[in-house]
Amino acid sequence: MSSEKIRATVESYVELVGAGTAEAVVDLFAEGATVEDPIGADVRSTRESLLEFYGAIAGLERSTSLSWVRIAGDTAVFEFSLTTAAGDASFQVTPIDIMRFDDDGRVVSMRAVWDPATDLKQI
Amino acid sequence: MSSEKIRATVESYVELVGAGTAEAVVDLFAEGATVEDPIGADVRSTRESLLEFYGAIAGLERSTSLSWVRIAGDTAVFEFSLTTAAGDASFQVTPIDIMRFDDDGRVVSMRAVWDPATDLKQI
Repeated sequence: MSSEKIRATVESYVELVGAGTAEAVVDLFAEGATVEDPIGADVRSTRESLLEFYGAIAGLERSTSLSWVRIAGDTAVFEFSLTTAAGDASFQVTPIDIMRFDDDGRVVSMRAVWDPATDLKQI
Repeated sequence: MSSEKIRATVESYVELVGAGTAEAVVDLFAEGATVEDPIGADVRSTRESLLEFYGAIAGLERSTSLSWVRIAGDTAVFEFSLTTAAGDASFQVTPIDIMRFDDDGRVVSMRAVWDPATDLKQI
């Protein structure tokens, strides 16, 4: 798995979380992939549960921006911001995601490092 | 495991990598803990192999600085710089480490995200 391919998948992921369907996001994941967002929450491991998770985001007026990405071996770590609008208010969360990839470049695990107490802000 | 305790251990780790003995660094780890540095290298899983790894750093003239740390659940992600002197030259590497902790606050795994091609510089 090349770092260029991993980088491209990370960029697609952040774009799709900001403007894609839940199906398009989940298509980046391998079968049986796990999502723990934020770390400490229940681990999701079925396509259905991933569609539910990303479907909740996809229903919002939203935008995303990739801040930085670092890659080594099968792993990417990256920070992005997700801004959502709810009525007159906007909220921004800035997770750092840890993603591991299989040899086909699909995501096999995503663990999101963010704390609702400090990393979620009204803007 | 509280995030305050994890943060304190991360700060101790970076300080000890910069100015401590290999034994003091390895004492932060649980028995059977794994170290993969950088990700893609062989995974070290014995105390002896961890002492060898940190002993190589401890033999150098060096300093460290913690850039930032983010914590969620049992996991910390942090960036630090390690500057080493070799004759007239100094080198700086800036890894992002992913650490998981057990309930006693000991490190159970460390995976370091850095690429010798881009994250190691002569300064």
